Amino acid sequence: MAANEKIEEGLELVPKFDKDGLITAVAQDAETGDVLMVAYMNAEALELTLRTGQAVYFSRSRKKLWRKGEESGHTQKVQQVLVDCDQDCLILKVKVDQGQCHVGYQSCFYRKVKLGTTDKLELTASKVYDPAEAYKKKS
Amino acid sequence: MAANEKIEEGLELVPKFDKDGLITAVAQDAETGDVLMVAYMNAEALELTLRTGQAVYFSRSRKKLWRKGEESGHTQKVQQVLVDCDQDCLILKVKVDQGQCHVGYQSCFYRKVKLGTTDKLELTASKVYDPAEAYKKKS
Repeated sequence: MAANEKIEEGLELVPKFDKDGLITAVAQDAETGDVLMVAYMNAEALELTLRTGQAVYFSRSRKKLWRKGEESGHTQKVQQVLVDCDQDCLILKVKVDQGQCHVGYQSCFYRKVKLGTTDKLELTASKVYDPAEAYKKKS
Repeated sequence: MAANEKIEEGLELVPKFDKDGLITAVAQDAETGDVLMVAYMNAEALELTLRTGQAVYFSRSRKKLWRKGEESGHTQKVQQVLVDCDQDCLILKVKVDQGQCHVGYQSCFYRKVKLGTTDKLELTASKVYDPAEAYKKKS
């Protein structure tokens, strides 16, 4: 099997990390199918996620492991991990309680581009929790 | 409104392109909710997508605009574009015919990590078209 074919057709996980050592991870609600957030993992975060069943990412801004929910309490229980054809992107099907976005929404994708425009947004959701309260109680 | 608040709470699209001028775009089937692929857009690709309603990406390997379906015929009709809290990721809700992955599957995510392992994959789908035929007929 050629290298490319092995990656695309093989049954071995060989994640392709980028030059910063990261792979894109899409967290999708296992029940509703809604995409909740898109984040990044380094090899250690991926290993921890697979071993523990709790989503662990790598925070690019804080440059360290980010155990999802460590501050907000809003963890993600991983039910399935999918990988794409060239193995440079993952989907985590996760079970969540509520409020996966730090702004207070269930999903980070709470705005859509207004039809007929290229720069106007409109809300598609309402906040489900108060981030000021959630982050305060854990600090 | 502080800069951060404007990005997170504002109703103006101010996409945050990375140092290579790209933004991550998740294509999600508008009907089934399945994530079909994850790709990248530069400013021109995003503008074209919003103006035409057909998904246009930027191919990192070919370093040029990639009008999805230009070779395979498998286009994506964009029904909605969502943006995340920090505006560095988009979701395209798309209407598709079939075979969105160049390997022959409906989605690029046709394998999952086998439960209880950290490196074994198993198939979750069957091929829906023959890529050799699809790409031949357009070249």
